[in-house]
Amino acid sequence: MTTATCTAFDELATDLRESVLLSSTEQILGWDQETMMPEGGVEYRSRQLALLARLVAERDQTNARGELIAACEEDSNVLADPVRAGIVREARRDYTRACKVPARLVEELTKTASIAQHEWAQSRAANDFKRFQPWLEKLVSLLREKAACLGWDRAHGEPWDALADLYEPGCTAKMVEGVFTPLRGRLQTFVAQLTSATRKPSNAFNEFEIPIEKQEAFCKFVAAKIGFDFSRGRLDRSTHPFCSGSHCNDIRMTTRYATHCLNDGLGSTLHESGHGIYEQGLHFSQVGLPSGQSVSLGIHESQSRMWENQVGRSKAFWMWAQGTFKSELGIEPTRFSLDALYEAANIVEPGLIRVESDEATYNLHIMVRFEIERAILRGDLEVAGIPAEWNRLYRDYLGLTVPDDRRGCMQDIHWSMGSMGYFPTYTLGNLYAAQFFEAAKYAIPDLDAQITRGEFGALKTWLNREIHQHGRQFSPTELVMRVTGKPLSAEPLMRHLEGKLRPLYGM
Amino acid sequence: MTTATCTAFDELATDLRESVLLSSTEQILGWDQETMMPEGGVEYRSRQLALLARLVAERDQTNARGELIAACEEDSNVLADPVRAGIVREARRDYTRACKVPARLVEELTKTASIAQHEWAQSRAANDFKRFQPWLEKLVSLLREKAACLGWDRAHGEPWDALADLYEPGCTAKMVEGVFTPLRGRLQTFVAQLTSATRKPSNAFNEFEIPIEKQEAFCKFVAAKIGFDFSRGRLDRSTHPFCSGSHCNDIRMTTRYATHCLNDGLGSTLHESGHGIYEQGLHFSQVGLPSGQSVSLGIHESQSRMWENQVGRSKAFWMWAQGTFKSELGIEPTRFSLDALYEAANIVEPGLIRVESDEATYNLHIMVRFEIERAILRGDLEVAGIPAEWNRLYRDYLGLTVPDDRRGCMQDIHWSMGSMGYFPTYTLGNLYAAQFFEAAKYAIPDLDAQITRGEFGALKTWLNREIHQHGRQFSPTELVMRVTGKPLSAEPLMRHLEGKLRPLYGM
Repeated sequence: MTTATCTAFDELATDLRESVLLSSTEQILGWDQETMMPEGGVEYRSRQLALLARLVAERDQTNARGELIAACEEDSNVLADPVRAGIVREARRDYTRACKVPARLVEELTKTASIAQHEWAQSRAANDFKRFQPWLEKLVSLLREKAACLGWDRAHGEPWDALADLYEPGCTAKMVEGVFTPLRGRLQTFVAQLTSATRKPSNAFNEFEIPIEKQEAFCKFVAAKIGFDFSRGRLDRSTHPFCSGSHCNDIRMTTRYATHCLNDGLGSTLHESGHGIYEQGLHFSQVGLPSGQSVSLGIHESQSRMWENQVGRSKAFWMWAQGTFKSELGIEPTRFSLDALYEAANIVEPGLIRVESDEATYNLHIMVRFEIERAILRGDLEVAGIPAEWNRLYRDYLGLTVPDDRRGCMQDIHWSMGSMGYFPTYTLGNLYAAQFFEAAKYAIPDLDAQITRGEFGALKTWLNREIHQHGRQFSPTELVMRVTGKPLSAEPLMRHLEGKLRPLYGM
Repeated sequence: MTTATCTAFDELATDLRESVLLSSTEQILGWDQETMMPEGGVEYRSRQLALLARLVAERDQTNARGELIAACEEDSNVLADPVRAGIVREARRDYTRACKVPARLVEELTKTASIAQHEWAQSRAANDFKRFQPWLEKLVSLLREKAACLGWDRAHGEPWDALADLYEPGCTAKMVEGVFTPLRGRLQTFVAQLTSATRKPSNAFNEFEIPIEKQEAFCKFVAAKIGFDFSRGRLDRSTHPFCSGSHCNDIRMTTRYATHCLNDGLGSTLHESGHGIYEQGLHFSQVGLPSGQSVSLGIHESQSRMWENQVGRSKAFWMWAQGTFKSELGIEPTRFSLDALYEAANIVEPGLIRVESDEATYNLHIMVRFEIERAILRGDLEVAGIPAEWNRLYRDYLGLTVPDDRRGCMQDIHWSMGSMGYFPTYTLGNLYAAQFFEAAKYAIPDLDAQITRGEFGALKTWLNREIHQHGRQFSPTELVMRVTGKPLSAEPLMRHLEGKLRPLYGM
């Protein structure tokens, strides 16, 4: 390796690290805004975040960076090293994308989204889609412009692909459709069987009051137990649970609690801990480089869903958890049977609200959103037509009549934030989670027995080794092949759902 | 006003505001570091802060800013408007200073101070001045270089002046000496009388245990009562109390509590609330401009000391506070007499530690530090000679034998942070506080009676109007003249101390 080529890669690494160092401050300010900031801070905080975003965006599209990437791409020594080559490949990907969208458009989208979010909250509260409509129209127009800047495969693709690629590299509407369509049929049939079953699992534990302070202490205990390192992170409360933080050694998770339902807070704690454990599993030495970043939102979601669903709704988990109730929550072991706890975590009930939905119906909610945003971006559906299309799809997919837009097409914040192409990553996460978990069980034959004893270390170590430590070295598709030996499939998820839920519903 | 001149001032304002917007993010990250950040975040946080500091420093010395200031200085319309003229004058002051110190020196000082702080903490714990000495020598050498860059009045001044001016504009060692020397004599005589008095105030309340949670709720209650607006700020816990925050609508205060002594936590809460109320009294419309910034550390300290000492150690305050003990702390009014509470807040006892010292001896601690840093910067004292000189001055000024450097010259963090010329602002704050409070009492004749009723609004409004709202419009010296009609004097402080403490000590 000559000194000159060594320098280009080192310079690129320094340049990339500095951008991330700056943008990492945004993460802390964002977390602070949701958890700590007094209400008086709102206006100035949005100015602080906008300035930092602009400074980062400027750094991410300089000619100097482009030249450094080009120099690395011509350096055979760099290319011969798979880790460095991966860093350069991902740097190119980010740089190309950053250069494609003009600063004017980025700024207009940011500003419009900021107002649109406020308008969305007001319109939702007033159940007034007409009020929100012009803002969503403006956003859609800007998003279509952004998609045009980013580009898509003109022969086989469509505008949705350009935006989805921001969240899930390589993801296309065709690919999603290929997985979603057969999955939808199977889920609809299965949910219909469950809802018409004569046996119903017991919901009693979900109506049992536990003081919030006790729940919070318990959730922190569980998060630490499954492997979240509190010397490198926190768990606080916020209106909407999230996982943020500036780097693997400082992860900020939040959750929310409902007095009468431990499963609400526990489920979201397990979920966010899955995100947090992924982030903590990245290497600090790689901070600021693609090799120290998560692969995609879908893979991220697989980690949260696995701990929430595959682990947290399993009988093995509740066997262990029940044994901790006396010391951690002051609940006598005789108060709820193991079956009562296990059943309460696995109630299936088609409902109108995505974030309140269960494991079996959840993906049907996502499919509705995917159909609509795809059609909107293709120009096949007008914004004004969203409520009717939403209601039609809910009837068709979930058998539900949507009573109003508040509980219909205005329930989610995503579109008002300018995020289209995002929703399917939730379902991809569910699919990856089931497929990864089957691989984990194969690799750790006594995993179930370990979980009943509250031993989560082997699973965490396996996830660290197989998924977390690689950063963005492999694409989502490559990673799934590498870890499970098979391409993404709906079979593991259906096996997981059917294997668990059929007995619970007496089928 | 022509369009062209209007533009120069507007452009300058925009440029200044953006620098502050960026540096305000440092404040939040700094607060987070002391209150919320998990220990794993330390290393990356120091990188984040260093980057932000560098970006701000770069912005604060661009040629473009210099040209904008020069354009404003030639614009008679701007100069005819006292507020705008004040902004331009202060912008020039900041700009000139920023340009004088080379980036290399700023960076070396920051890096050295960062290590020196760590070395100071270790050396203090080990009571090993020799270990700390080389770091302090390095810092002193850099500070002398910095003073040389900044410059001082070569005919009448000395290097200390150049550094003190950073904290207290216009402050010189000669000026400080002129106030300190007579004050020292009077304080020493007075403290000697107090310590040999036969009557001793009761310390019983300072040994009364109250759970921390109750103390915290009470301190928040008091902070809100005296006028701190919790919709525009917070009060948290930290090892060392401080007041920070990014702007007047988002102020972050911290305090600490001792189970057995409410006065510890209450005193530091009143102190930090004084700082917080000052910051909240600046105008949000002026955020980022000198007109929206505090005048000096001395004036800032006057606000914290006034609420802590003139208000919080007064009989009127304790009359009101006693009446709240039942509802706020569950303490029966008969448990402690009003005299017992009032006396416990006013114990005088010469001690080794500055931060634990009382109102009467506090300034003697400062005088020791002033003498030493002045001599060090002038080159009259070597760093190696600090411990001996420290111990000599403590014997001379406070009549105390210093048993070790841990409780001697290594007790404070300031010098290890590269802050010399800072300490006297504490005593200036005490002097300003007493002088301002006499003016407030003159302006609000029934202030004492108001305080006994828990009415603090008139005092806060007076402070807002007379001091806070002006930002940096007036220099500290001008402000004192304007508010009190007299130049700074030690008389009000001595009147305050003697008037209160003599009766308590039966003199």
